[in-house]
Amino acid sequence: GVLGSGDFARSLAVRLVRSGFRVVVGSRNPKRKASLFPAAAEVTFQAEAAKKADVIFVAIFREHYSTLCDLADVLVGKILVDVSNNTEINHHKESNAEYLASLFPACTVVKAFNVVSAWTLQSGARDGNKQVLICSNNQEAKRTIAEIAQVMGFTPVDMGCMSSACEIENIPLRLLPAWKIPIFLALGLFLCFFTYNLIRQVIHPYIREQKNKLYKIPIEVVNTTLPCVSYVMLSLVYLPGVLAACSQLYYGTKYRRFPDWLDQWLQHRKQIGLLSFFCAALHAVYSLCLPMRRSHRYLLIETAVKQAMEKKMTIWEEEEVWRMEIYISVGIFALGLLSLLAITSLPSIANSLNWREFSFIQ
Amino acid sequence: GVLGSGDFARSLAVRLVRSGFRVVVGSRNPKRKASLFPAAAEVTFQAEAAKKADVIFVAIFREHYSTLCDLADVLVGKILVDVSNNTEINHHKESNAEYLASLFPACTVVKAFNVVSAWTLQSGARDGNKQVLICSNNQEAKRTIAEIAQVMGFTPVDMGCMSSACEIENIPLRLLPAWKIPIFLALGLFLCFFTYNLIRQVIHPYIREQKNKLYKIPIEVVNTTLPCVSYVMLSLVYLPGVLAACSQLYYGTKYRRFPDWLDQWLQHRKQIGLLSFFCAALHAVYSLCLPMRRSHRYLLIETAVKQAMEKKMTIWEEEEVWRMEIYISVGIFALGLLSLLAITSLPSIANSLNWREFSFIQ
Amino acid sequence: GVLGSGDFARSLAVRLVRSGFRVVVGSRNPKRKASLFPAAAEVTFQAEAAKKADVIFVAIFREHYSTLCDLADVLVGKILVDVSNNTEINHHKESNAEYLASLFPACTVVKAFNVVSAWTLQSGARDGNKQVLICSNNQEAKRTIAEIAQVMGFTPVDMGCMSSACEIENIPLRLLPAWKIPIFLALGLFLCFFTYNLIRQVIHPYIREQKNKLYKIPIEVVNTTLPCVSYVMLSLVYLPGVLAACSQLYYGTKYRRFPDWLDQWLQHRKQIGLLSFFCAALHAVYSLCLPMRRSHRYLLIETAVKQAMEKKMTIWEEEEVWRMEIYISVGIFALGLLSLLAITSLPSIANSLNWREFSFIQ
Repeated sequence: GVLGSGDFARSLAVRLVRSGFRVVVGSRNPKRKASLFPAAAEVTFQAEAAKKADVIFVAIFREHYSTLCDLADVLVGKILVDVSNNTEINHHKESNAEYLASLFPACTVVKAFNVVSAWTLQSGARDGNKQVLICSNNQEAKRTIAEIAQVMGFTPVDMGCMSSACEIENIPLRLLPAWKIPIFLALGLFLCFFTYNLIRQVIHPYIREQKNKLYKIPIEVVNTTLPCVSYVMLSLVYLPGVLAACSQLYYGTKYRRFPDWLDQWLQHRKQIGLLSFFCAALHAVYSLCLPMRRSHRYLLIETAVKQAMEKKMTIWEEEEVWRMEIYISVGIFALGLLSLLAITSLPSIANSLNWREFSFIQ
Repeated sequence: GVLGSGDFARSLAVRLVRSGFRVVVGSRNPKRKASLFPAAAEVTFQAEAAKKADVIFVAIFREHYSTLCDLADVLVGKILVDVSNNTEINHHKESNAEYLASLFPACTVVKAFNVVSAWTLQSGARDGNKQVLICSNNQEAKRTIAEIAQVMGFTPVDMGCMSSACEIENIPLRLLPAWKIPIFLALGLFLCFFTYNLIRQVIHPYIREQKNKLYKIPIEVVNTTLPCVSYVMLSLVYLPGVLAACSQLYYGTKYRRFPDWLDQWLQHRKQIGLLSFFCAALHAVYSLCLPMRRSHRYLLIETAVKQAMEKKMTIWEEEEVWRMEIYISVGIFALGLLSLLAITSLPSIANSLNWREFSFIQ
Repeated sequence: GVLGSGDFARSLAVRLVRSGFRVVVGSRNPKRKASLFPAAAEVTFQAEAAKKADVIFVAIFREHYSTLCDLADVLVGKILVDVSNNTEINHHKESNAEYLASLFPACTVVKAFNVVSAWTLQSGARDGNKQVLICSNNQEAKRTIAEIAQVMGFTPVDMGCMSSACEIENIPLRLLPAWKIPIFLALGLFLCFFTYNLIRQVIHPYIREQKNKLYKIPIEVVNTTLPCVSYVMLSLVYLPGVLAACSQLYYGTKYRRFPDWLDQWLQHRKQIGLLSFFCAALHAVYSLCLPMRRSHRYLLIETAVKQAMEKKMTIWEEEEVWRMEIYISVGIFALGLLSLLAITSLPSIANSLNWREFSFIQ
């Protein structure tokens, strides 16, 4: 049974019918809404639908849950599936599913399918995320819903008892939570090093020698800033592991929980490492662009003209030559290694490595 | 039961035996073929095999279906699984499975396993695509085959009733259908812009000033063409979304189907976007190669010599310098953003994002 | 039932409890260890646990298997799951699971879960590899364990009978086995070509003309070596396919096994191809770095000064110009094609292509 006639209710009915289930839809206005549902689904009044079905998907907004209270008698002993989502993280004190359970104490409430979009339901989970997170206090009901999800082509994931409902409801509202701290960290570091390099390369020569080198800001100053950020970020990837090892040695046990800040830090290592790689890659691209610039060309011609007028044939400086050759070689090597790390952090590659291979590469 | 003794029949028998099923193979020449099958599978005559088995995989060519008509009596009430493929899209008027069903009206026909190769069957679906598309008019039979597929390590996908058989049979014959239109579009745009740039950079100077600049064709003309193609393609990614929104506003409903051309266009956005990224990346590589060229070197030296002979010390043009610095910075920034879009369109990454994150990045 | 109280035993108990199973843990010191296990798991003496459970996970080291012999009477007829791993490949003559089976002939032994880490068990298989390889001589027991694995959120993979146990136990110890030969091959080729280029570009001019060109070693010599390696590797990707076809034509059958060396070679094609792409990409990066070098700059200025002093205005050589323009265009084109091959070898992309599309791209 499906209660509701919105987008999600319709997609759910379509998918259930296609997976071979008998579906009855409960609507407050069955006649007007019937045309929206597949022909194989029976559309009737809410009370009628609730009576006929054993498993009832409640596809209406939390605000209207109380309107179902008239059906309380019919719903006794049935499984109610809460598929709702919120519009803000932790909007209400208790999760929608727990609220539903408090309204219908005689029903078994299961939280499920909220992480699946109406679009995924209709297109049949061949693309996009196929996981359906399920939680409930009743093992039996949870298993029933898991089986329905499996027949519908999804991968049920057991998230434990009802207290996880809040967490599950927050999942579709997350906005790359693991990336927030690393990105702000990278921006902060960039700002610091950029200011330092701006003073050193542009402002200082201007004040001391009145030389106008403002043209260096968009490329050269940025390009000297990027590797600094990249280095510091890379060291921040490996530092927490060392700290964690020290903490374990100090306390003499590996079962003691790390302090929260260290735990957080350990969990963000992948993102910090990817941003470090991103900065290094940008540095490579900026460096490769250097000889393309007009300024590079003008400086070159000016030097040549100056040399020619002074009749000086040679300007070769062996030390400068070697410094640059070695700098570039080592840079390419380092970027190659970082690329390898970045590629193995792609989910589809990481999943095909065993633990020993993964730690070898890292 | 498996009828047939080709590559696919053998791989199927191997896999079924390995998954713990009892297998009987029906062949027209059981003695000669027995050695090809695993020892645990019983190889016998077709009629014998058909009698013993409840589920029968018909692993023979469509052309030979009629040879099975002698077995019609034995097959009554059994499940026939059509695993056949065609060699051309829409080769026959009705699908192989529907043809088989018309030959054996007393059997339940299920279309399945045709999208799986003999190789995948033998190697055990640990690599490659694991989906098995199933369709049938009989829900019960469909579920039986889905369970067999699951035990064999595949992911059954319910494709509805028998009328989908034609679609399923066409799947292994598809050749990147979603890419055809975008690739021709990109080639067309490239040709137009290339002609324009050829006239502007090579033919026009030749006619007007008799300057031979043919050497510009392979790199410089291509390099000015690529960003034009990239820009137009990128705008074609975002345009249909705007048109669709306008159409919804105009008709005041989101349940009205879009016209076919708009629907097609909306579905090709990902491919158009990836080609736009490809052109932008090529433009970056071409641009980075510019200073490597001999012609760049010769022009530079010529300018220097000319300057030296005219005793002109400075050729610095502040405006030109700034134009280039800003052009390169913005270019790197744009390419970085496009790379992000391209990376998040990798299936394994896209699947790990929720809807809010995906639309934020897009 | 879980016998043992190490890391793995604890993670296993946590996961089993979370998946809704009733768990009893057998420890030699239940009082001291009880606090490590989840509250819902009963921790008791080994004999007690073995009596209560039907399926018993043996989460202790192979060395201590013999200590379980006292429980032999209680274990009669039960399913023992061997989850152990070795520390070296083929460390013992017989696999751990077969050794366990020889100690308890009255039990059914199943090998499973050894490829899953304690960490994956606790975090719930939402990341990382979800496959659980299972083997046993008893089909019924194998299916029971497969069902348990499925409920726990893993993907059971049937690996056949007990003789596969050795192979399964070696899997977590593998270290990129498919990469070893290709990497040594690439290193060997690199060394050969590097020596040749070193002699040709540095040592020969030094001996003949006393010119010190040592600065060329880190970049220019490496850069001329890389495309040679890349070419040879690429040809080694396509050569074995031709040899295999010839062998099939010669013997007139496709069912004859290829000789071992050819089989090995055919299986390493993907890795050889990716290394070929890696060398080609490195060559591109090195080439793009060429104009960034000091030496490039100095040589340019020197040429310009020389020209100016000899009052020669033009040094344009049409042939040299064209050679470079064409070389770069073709290089970019080739790298683009190789990139396409490399991208389609990503598991998540390869899985979304059908056989015809894959072979078209290859």
